[in-house]
Amino acid sequence: MEQIICTVDVVLLTLQDDSLKVALLKRTHAPYQGLLALPGGYIHQGEDSDARDAALRVLRDKANIHAPYLEQLATFTGQARDPRGWSISVSYYALVSAQVIEAAAHPDVHLVDVDRYQQLPFDHQHILNTAVQRLRSKSQYSSLPCYLAGDTFTLPQLQRVYEVLMGEAINKVSFRRKMTEMDMLEVAGGKPEAHGAHRPAQLYQLKPAFRQHLRLLERGF
Amino acid sequence: MEQIICTVDVVLLTLQDDSLKVALLKRTHAPYQGLLALPGGYIHQGEDSDARDAALRVLRDKANIHAPYLEQLATFTGQARDPRGWSISVSYYALVSAQVIEAAAHPDVHLVDVDRYQQLPFDHQHILNTAVQRLRSKSQYSSLPCYLAGDTFTLPQLQRVYEVLMGEAINKVSFRRKMTEMDMLEVAGGKPEAHGAHRPAQLYQLKPAFRQHLRLLERGF
Repeated sequence: MEQIICTVDVVLLTLQDDSLKVALLKRTHAPYQGLLALPGGYIHQGEDSDARDAALRVLRDKANIHAPYLEQLATFTGQARDPRGWSISVSYYALVSAQVIEAAAHPDVHLVDVDRYQQLPFDHQHILNTAVQRLRSKSQYSSLPCYLAGDTFTLPQLQRVYEVLMGEAINKVSFRRKMTEMDMLEVAGGKPEAHGAHRPAQLYQLKPAFRQHLRLLERGF
Repeated sequence: MEQIICTVDVVLLTLQDDSLKVALLKRTHAPYQGLLALPGGYIHQGEDSDARDAALRVLRDKANIHAPYLEQLATFTGQARDPRGWSISVSYYALVSAQVIEAAAHPDVHLVDVDRYQQLPFDHQHILNTAVQRLRSKSQYSSLPCYLAGDTFTLPQLQRVYEVLMGEAINKVSFRRKMTEMDMLEVAGGKPEAHGAHRPAQLYQLKPAFRQHLRLLERGF
């Protein structure tokens, strides 16, 4: 009996020009050589202490992304998903701001709108859809969208992120009430710059307790 | 390099005497021979079309349980969790009524209160805790508890299941309002038997659409 193929795949998501985008890489080997696919790879038993470690290594080596918010999504398995044989993909999703992707400046990374039809290899379209669905549903009742907004952001900027993810306008007053209730933001150090005649908008950041762990609410928007 | 150990584990949960219980089996082989553990086993590439299939086979072969409600929980991985080497456990949780466990009458299955301290082998205590937390949190906004209530149930019986899972009393009027809102129940065929002088309590069952798929609500109790 052949060894089961043990891999990780990562759905790396960001927000650019008010669109949710996924980072894809051109495959350098068969099968599906040359096609755009999710960043992924074999688990290295000698190097990775667990699958999360493998996912972080893949992001580092293949996309130059370090220590993003990363969460296990689901595991995709079976004899049918990979032409090489029975396989397991322990899949993760990661969220970063567009600035992080731009700073990483990896020449092989292609940012593609998640809603644009893709002919992704393996079951990567299914994995991608599962991640987008999870992100959108979890955005209703958690701090998850903040990871797409960058280290610091104004409240209107953060509201826009929530709106794009939830696909609908949110009333400004109820958005601010929700942010107060969630109690996850603090004023960011440093003075925001004034733009023209307008009062400078206050910058916020996640409180330290919620930079690695989600703030979850029982009731969402 | 040794092959990565690819397994499935199943947290089989039921409700008995108003307590949430987990089905454990005495291990027949090393490591941890003789200790109670979650039902699990190697993925059989030739036999299982995917990991879900393997989990269903394990439940069938080791606990005589057929086609329960089964959902992927998470995947537990790494070099530290199994003394035999780097391992992957694609873990599932399954929900059945106590009558199903009693009808299965498997002599090796031990039902143990989930809150009772256990010295479970591997990371099975962590897997169990993750499943119980998932069930309790998901009970807030879904039809999940119905799978513990059996094929048919009265509304007071179902309310009791929700209360045990959520760990608190629920107001009868708001429980019934929630059930109406969820629109997942229908009157069960057959006449409920009268008990003494009381009007017989109406029996309900899940509507066919929700017998395999959860009914999810955006806002919970």
